[in-house]
Amino acid sequence: MSKTPAETGEERLIAKYFAPIANHPGALRLSDDAAMLTPPPGCDIVLTKDAIVGGVHFFPEEPADAIARKALRVNLSDLAAKGAAPAGFLLALALPEHVTDSWLESFAKGLGADADAYACPLLGGDTVKTPGPLMVSITAFGFVPQGGMVHRHGAKPGERIIVTGTVGDAALGLRLRNDADAGRRWNLDNKSREHLLDRYLLPQPRSVLAKLVQAHASAAMDVSDGLAGDLAKLCRTSGVTAQIDVARVPLSDAARTALAAEPALIETLLGGGDDYEIVCTVPAAQSDAFIAAAQAAGVAATDIGGAMAGEGFPRFIGADGKPLRLRKTSFSHF
Amino acid sequence: MSKTPAETGEERLIAKYFAPIANHPGALRLSDDAAMLTPPPGCDIVLTKDAIVGGVHFFPEEPADAIARKALRVNLSDLAAKGAAPAGFLLALALPEHVTDSWLESFAKGLGADADAYACPLLGGDTVKTPGPLMVSITAFGFVPQGGMVHRHGAKPGERIIVTGTVGDAALGLRLRNDADAGRRWNLDNKSREHLLDRYLLPQPRSVLAKLVQAHASAAMDVSDGLAGDLAKLCRTSGVTAQIDVARVPLSDAARTALAAEPALIETLLGGGDDYEIVCTVPAAQSDAFIAAAQAAGVAATDIGGAMAGEGFPRFIGADGKPLRLRKTSFSHF
Repeated sequence: MSKTPAETGEERLIAKYFAPIANHPGALRLSDDAAMLTPPPGCDIVLTKDAIVGGVHFFPEEPADAIARKALRVNLSDLAAKGAAPAGFLLALALPEHVTDSWLESFAKGLGADADAYACPLLGGDTVKTPGPLMVSITAFGFVPQGGMVHRHGAKPGERIIVTGTVGDAALGLRLRNDADAGRRWNLDNKSREHLLDRYLLPQPRSVLAKLVQAHASAAMDVSDGLAGDLAKLCRTSGVTAQIDVARVPLSDAARTALAAEPALIETLLGGGDDYEIVCTVPAAQSDAFIAAAQAAGVAATDIGGAMAGEGFPRFIGADGKPLRLRKTSFSHF
Repeated sequence: MSKTPAETGEERLIAKYFAPIANHPGALRLSDDAAMLTPPPGCDIVLTKDAIVGGVHFFPEEPADAIARKALRVNLSDLAAKGAAPAGFLLALALPEHVTDSWLESFAKGLGADADAYACPLLGGDTVKTPGPLMVSITAFGFVPQGGMVHRHGAKPGERIIVTGTVGDAALGLRLRNDADAGRRWNLDNKSREHLLDRYLLPQPRSVLAKLVQAHASAAMDVSDGLAGDLAKLCRTSGVTAQIDVARVPLSDAARTALAAEPALIETLLGGGDDYEIVCTVPAAQSDAFIAAAQAAGVAATDIGGAMAGEGFPRFIGADGKPLRLRKTSFSHF
């Protein structure tokens, strides 16, 4: 489609909804072909890109501001796990025909609120039409001291394995979304249901822990596809294996209640996606200090086991002292 | 969907098709959550993000390697227009169910070939499933000396307006794709048809001119939505207007033949999208040197008019000395 007037529809859309939230000088008021980032001397740039698709990664009927926030937060979670301070992000937005002005307004508002809250400014992007579902593809940038990015590799035998927050809530939240009766079967009160649904809707990236991870972790990643599978990836990349004490894996009260009602949920808790917590390895001598500093920053951190020499899938030891047999350890689209 | 084995399907897909073309150390063999870029001291990073959607920006039945190349090249074109040397890119790929192994192989091969040819390595990305059309969203990074990015603003009255290559070929190529009879009406031989179709299929980003643009241009942008509309954007952002001599706008032989057969095509040539040439303003005293240096680098560059004080849409002066009345000046999705 071609347009006569001086401003195209895309320019108007950007000027109306996105330029007001793009207040970083490198964004050039979203009126250029590119954005600019001036790295502080002695820094590396950490680059991450996570895309979310309507009907695949989120329910399209979710509030627009929550979709925007989730799209940004899954990327912030990657930066935090790499020990990087957020520096900014680019947004690619593929919009179906039916998207309304009020939807866009709410989307931009949510995005702007989180950009401010996490000090991660919108720098630029691209807006296109699609005959398919809404898709939000964000590329986020972070700074670390040169050579200081925390990798998936680097874990050494004898180190402690630490996970932040609680595990499995979002996977239960998703189950609740798809199965209205599950809340009753799991003996959940309204508050517990809300907690789990919220954890699925809106990740809590552990950005406040980035510096701590950068200072102490030998290896780290964000838990986005399930603790068991993600820890296995970290171990495989590091050339180690691990032993996890399942009783020590941190669960919310809601998850604990559900698990008591349906013990098979342990699979969902350990293998379900969307936690957006950090799992990392820390030298044993530093693990207590790490946990204390995380708690001082307002985030629980829990020692759940240790890295060991050897290879193979990490062993998750149950209350009976025997390894669990996990059938599903990771979320994958493919 | 969840998977039992140690490697998920997404990991296998990445390891099989994309890791082999990701040979830059910052890509971390695509086995981490993020990639890394170490900026040279004294550099700014130029960031650009262009997404293309099947059925909107390209024909889904196009060869996979051409789709990959187009997705990367439209971003390289932005970097070149900003005066930036390519540094690397991230790829988000949303794949419909029906995508086959051979399609992915061809896609990765095309992407790898262009990454090498343009010295712009694949650093990382994200692969997701979509129930909608194929979408390729690329974020590309380039380096410029600090403060040296060429903006859309900066054009001054009296400066010359220079455009690279030829204009309008891709828009005619798209018309040929959609209207089998157009080639006959426009008196095009097979070679001319091929030329126009190729220009639509595969942009030729002017990366070899990046340094020249950086050294001489006061303002620049890539022509992706039509020369007339894009020049209008550059002028508006710069606070100037322009006068263009239509007879001097560079056309390929094929475009010239078509225009002779159907003079109304001037609208398509000046207002159609997908040129991926550079339009820039250069101080009058430097324009001959700029054009000569571009030609020495193998790219035609043509002085098509001048920037002028004032505002309003640039005037395109026809052979009769009167301004053309352009009804369609720019491609826009919205």
